Amino acid sequence: MKKKVTLKQIAKELDVSIATVSKALRNSKEISEDTREKVKAFAKLYNYRPNNIALSLKNRKTKTIGIIIPEIVHHFFSKVIQGIEEVANKKGYNVIIGLSNESFDKEVINMEMLANGSIDGFILSMSKQTLLKQDYHHFNETISQGMPIVMFDRVVNEINCDKVVVDDLKGAKKAVVKLIENQCKNIAIITTKDYISVGRLRTQGYIEALNEHNIDTQSELILKVDDKLVSEDYIEVLEQELKTLFLENPNIDGVFAVNELYAITVMKVARKLGKRIPEDLQVIGFTDGVLSRHSTPTLTTVCQHGKKIGAVAAELLIEKLENESEYEYFKSVVIETELKERESTK
Amino acid sequence: MKKKVTLKQIAKELDVSIATVSKALRNSKEISEDTREKVKAFAKLYNYRPNNIALSLKNRKTKTIGIIIPEIVHHFFSKVIQGIEEVANKKGYNVIIGLSNESFDKEVINMEMLANGSIDGFILSMSKQTLLKQDYHHFNETISQGMPIVMFDRVVNEINCDKVVVDDLKGAKKAVVKLIENQCKNIAIITTKDYISVGRLRTQGYIEALNEHNIDTQSELILKVDDKLVSEDYIEVLEQELKTLFLENPNIDGVFAVNELYAITVMKVARKLGKRIPEDLQVIGFTDGVLSRHSTPTLTTVCQHGKKIGAVAAELLIEKLENESEYEYFKSVVIETELKERESTK
Repeated sequence: MKKKVTLKQIAKELDVSIATVSKALRNSKEISEDTREKVKAFAKLYNYRPNNIALSLKNRKTKTIGIIIPEIVHHFFSKVIQGIEEVANKKGYNVIIGLSNESFDKEVINMEMLANGSIDGFILSMSKQTLLKQDYHHFNETISQGMPIVMFDRVVNEINCDKVVVDDLKGAKKAVVKLIENQCKNIAIITTKDYISVGRLRTQGYIEALNEHNIDTQSELILKVDDKLVSEDYIEVLEQELKTLFLENPNIDGVFAVNELYAITVMKVARKLGKRIPEDLQVIGFTDGVLSRHSTPTLTTVCQHGKKIGAVAAELLIEKLENESEYEYFKSVVIETELKERESTK
Repeated sequence: MKKKVTLKQIAKELDVSIATVSKALRNSKEISEDTREKVKAFAKLYNYRPNNIALSLKNRKTKTIGIIIPEIVHHFFSKVIQGIEEVANKKGYNVIIGLSNESFDKEVINMEMLANGSIDGFILSMSKQTLLKQDYHHFNETISQGMPIVMFDRVVNEINCDKVVVDDLKGAKKAVVKLIENQCKNIAIITTKDYISVGRLRTQGYIEALNEHNIDTQSELILKVDDKLVSEDYIEVLEQELKTLFLENPNIDGVFAVNELYAITVMKVARKLGKRIPEDLQVIGFTDGVLSRHSTPTLTTVCQHGKKIGAVAAELLIEKLENESEYEYFKSVVIETELKERESTK
């Protein structure tokens, strides 16, 4: 059996990055001519076939949508997929899913693989590493070859494509205003590092809500969690950080957490320190997943409507696939969030 | 653009089922010659290309594993995928995922689509509808065309392929014996309808544990939940059924639930009826997901090691793909479960 060589193998063989191989095969001017020729010669020798999306599009439609998401053990992404599936199935499309595991290389490899004749277009949310590297060549080149992409949740301005996002800033603001109205005087935020756009926007919403109510922002009440390690241990690290936060700032009476796992962990740590929820401490999370609904007390949270995000993304993509437009256009749809009040607030 | 006709479209056009089209294209004797010819003529007219897996295998390896699972909003399946991914990535394989949404037709369509040159082999868990229909032609024909399948969790004897299962019976028995040892006298089980093999096996484990300890099985303590409706409402129906169960059998002091959502719902309903956990009622679930770890009280549960199941399945498949064996052989691997004791038992 003749094996098909992969991008990864070429990269390893020539001791360059997967991005370099990918760019060289697409003849990107970013890569030196020398390297481009070396990569192409090697690819030819080992019978690697670069994507030829345009060609495959001319010949057939697969009626399949490719989804690429950063991780699968995540309620929000599962709900988005449900929403995509429902619309896709109704319109006679199938769905296949690839995972980037928050890795840039895996994102590139998955896109190459799926774009190679298996699908008609992509719905995707970027990996954290891609956001950090700010290397978007694989998206831009896929689009320029005629295969549409719809991005959701984690998006960047630099890419011209349809986008579906939640109003992270407004959603966060709603949550923090609720805490202020409920008489919280010292509100902490548990958020991500700034390179995650949704974390950054939610932090901004927190600051704007405080400002508009003439409350000073206290930098010691902003905890930016480093979750680059996607391991189960990082919850233990978070618990330790939260314990320190509460012990050093005993007057904290409200917490806004940018995801539900952070919020649940806040409640757990606070309870261990003898704080009653919601009497001594009110907590609001973001993302309405199973944890929020089944925790004790149940969690007040900003609901993102993941299923709706998926449904809208699928509609946008199928619209692009089925109606050839004279003009190039890109839609950005903002899905409104909703504050679901439960037992963790007064 | 010339559209590629899909299985579904052919089925609709000729007013037959997707299974019939699929079987007819593969020239199955189950289908009348008349229908076979009609389907084939139609498929030819509209340029449908039936799978030719054997052909594609001769020409290349994709280094990609296709996974088909019944649903995605499910912690167990997510963990299995994580396990598959880890082993696959280490060995230079990629993974793509299709969802059956518990539907036979979608399972058939997904297999056709992926088998058509995108992947080297399958790892899959059957849909509920397939188990009900007992129509396994799509698995058997894929295997007979030379594409290996590894099944996990929901498996049947009728299919000759590698299998990875948990010892559902023994796992359930362990849980119920624990309740007996903890002095529970009236132990209820919350389980699925019998056509779900894992539910049936776990119920059997419950009965065996009672028998071996000379405790009579009381049929009114066996609640078989009808969850064919995969909707969020069915939890409300379950809550009502559980309330009736507890009111009619006030002496229940132990519950074994065959999944964690049932177990969490048991605790919720029991608490509302004024029962203290674990003092008045001890509860054990199955599947160690986020709910079990983060519920209040935390849930004692039978841990299935989903990640290990995935890892073993990937190893079995890659072994088949990379080592051509003289003999046909099939492995069945049983992954041991483990009882994780937490706060919901004494």
